[in-house]
Amino acid sequence: MKKLINAVDDVVKEQLEGMALAHPDYVKVHFDPTYVYRADAPVEGKVALISGGGSGHEPMHGGFVGYGMLDAACPGEVFTSPTPDQMYEAALAVNGGAGVLFLVKNYTGDVLNFETAAELAYADGIAVQSILIDDDVAVKDSLYTAGRRGVGTTVLAEKIVGAATEARYDLKQCADLARKVNKYGRSMGMALTSCTVPAAGKPTFELGDDEIEIGIGIHGEPGMRREKMKAVDEIVDDMMAEILDDGPYARTVREWDNEHGEWIDVELIDPPFEAGDEIIAFVNSMGGTPVSELYAVYRRVAQICEGRDINIVRNLIGPYITSLEMQGFSITLLKADEEILKFWDAPVNTPGLRWGV
Amino acid sequence: MKKLINAVDDVVKEQLEGMALAHPDYVKVHFDPTYVYRADAPVEGKVALISGGGSGHEPMHGGFVGYGMLDAACPGEVFTSPTPDQMYEAALAVNGGAGVLFLVKNYTGDVLNFETAAELAYADGIAVQSILIDDDVAVKDSLYTAGRRGVGTTVLAEKIVGAATEARYDLKQCADLARKVNKYGRSMGMALTSCTVPAAGKPTFELGDDEIEIGIGIHGEPGMRREKMKAVDEIVDDMMAEILDDGPYARTVREWDNEHGEWIDVELIDPPFEAGDEIIAFVNSMGGTPVSELYAVYRRVAQICEGRDINIVRNLIGPYITSLEMQGFSITLLKADEEILKFWDAPVNTPGLRWGV
Repeated sequence: MKKLINAVDDVVKEQLEGMALAHPDYVKVHFDPTYVYRADAPVEGKVALISGGGSGHEPMHGGFVGYGMLDAACPGEVFTSPTPDQMYEAALAVNGGAGVLFLVKNYTGDVLNFETAAELAYADGIAVQSILIDDDVAVKDSLYTAGRRGVGTTVLAEKIVGAATEARYDLKQCADLARKVNKYGRSMGMALTSCTVPAAGKPTFELGDDEIEIGIGIHGEPGMRREKMKAVDEIVDDMMAEILDDGPYARTVREWDNEHGEWIDVELIDPPFEAGDEIIAFVNSMGGTPVSELYAVYRRVAQICEGRDINIVRNLIGPYITSLEMQGFSITLLKADEEILKFWDAPVNTPGLRWGV
Repeated sequence: MKKLINAVDDVVKEQLEGMALAHPDYVKVHFDPTYVYRADAPVEGKVALISGGGSGHEPMHGGFVGYGMLDAACPGEVFTSPTPDQMYEAALAVNGGAGVLFLVKNYTGDVLNFETAAELAYADGIAVQSILIDDDVAVKDSLYTAGRRGVGTTVLAEKIVGAATEARYDLKQCADLARKVNKYGRSMGMALTSCTVPAAGKPTFELGDDEIEIGIGIHGEPGMRREKMKAVDEIVDDMMAEILDDGPYARTVREWDNEHGEWIDVELIDPPFEAGDEIIAFVNSMGGTPVSELYAVYRRVAQICEGRDINIVRNLIGPYITSLEMQGFSITLLKADEEILKFWDAPVNTPGLRWGV
């Protein structure tokens, strides 16, 4: 294993220390329990947006803390869920009196721990809602997950809902917007190579010199199928077909009902993409793929959308939700209405995403 | 070779097509000869800033075309110099009447071809100056290069001088600023892995499972030495010592004298870093190294600077001047005065770097 690290046990801590040193004006890091938070938190009267999950996906989530995006992020060890006390303490630290919204990627550990944190925060008198992101069309009920995994739409949700908190949307409005973004977003990933978790010291999985994994998860979980390497256009064609031809997706999710202080079941149906849709197209590097190759991917994505009369009105291209040094990419398409575009375009000032300021 | 490409011969062309499709509002691509240029070029009365070089270093240079940075970029094939007609035609296309400034990384092919282009542009009545970037302290007179190689300072120079062109600095002022940025900047890189040029189909060099190359060039050229893998802090300590303890660097460079229409020799001496300096610290991924590991690098860079009473007043952390999918990083330190900081902070709107707009 060759990685730019010191001791394996210090990897996450030292990377966070580096981030805090690099961006002292707008990001602070609290250790024990560990969370990244806005330097100016709590922001009075603003809903606090909090996310988190295992480390190894940087810049997500810690790199998205700042004006117009997250108020706090709770990083676990690499590919390991953070603990409830991280989320609970982060909520106490950044709550500005308007409540906290948890954005939770759909992995069993994350879901359970954020549920505990929501109950703890509520018991302390903090208004809390929690929205699940489950946008990966590749697999259902996979390793680590019941239902679909939460992947690229998380980045877009953090940007869009973060902007809504700045516009002083109240907690329910923020939760409704986050739920809509999740409903409108679909993703799929692929890998050219594995990645190596520092504590494991060897690649998470083996992939032949001429093999690729279609539908890979962001922790190196198995995908839909393993294939022989082929041209990027063919790979993108297959992945875009999975995303664009995915029918209505119905499932039941648990949400915290802050008004009654209980968990409720919510029925959700994600609408499929249709001709005439306006979308945000997000082409993401898994960490080890350079931006030059992402542009080859984007070229084909744009061609396919044009052929289906789907209009890409915004795009994001780069490494935003990664899997350590894995080579590969993911595509996220998000149906975008006026509200989503307004908040997409709003200023953002974080280590990982910045414009307008 | 596993890469997200179609036919090897179409790699650069299709990546550029993808970039043009992604950013139609501010970037256009001309083919035969090939150059990327600002959608609103020529900008009347503004000096046009042009750079270029082999492809494979994206986002540099094409990803830095746009408001506040480059007016045009001339991409060669992967790791291959662009031709004089690319640079000359780009100059004709983006000259807004205030002349063109070529920013040239110090590689023999780039230098020769930009010289020819400067003569062609001058012969057409376009005011032209050309500034060399030679900031790599690792090696002198290496493969491809007489003198020091041009690396990370190029990115900073494109940002800073690009902002100066927006502020309507005249051609001589822009050239003087570019020369100062080059004098104030020093860089060094290292590699954990090789990269694979698509047309070659196999890694540029071999590196053992426990080996690293210190002082690597951005084309995979040999560095100062090969070592056993060690802790990131030790690697950064060595590289920072090379940069910070590098004495005055004296050499003669050729510059085009636009007033007299001839090449002149210019004596340059780069001052070393000193306690009390304010600097911009740039930690760059070679392409395959994720941002999480860059923060571990930055942490040590910041500690070392603090220990030497050198004040990092701005930083840039991410993949900006890459070597395809190579794993590794480079450090660039730039002594920053008031003029440099003013233009660093100015708005920029390019595919690869964006803030303030």
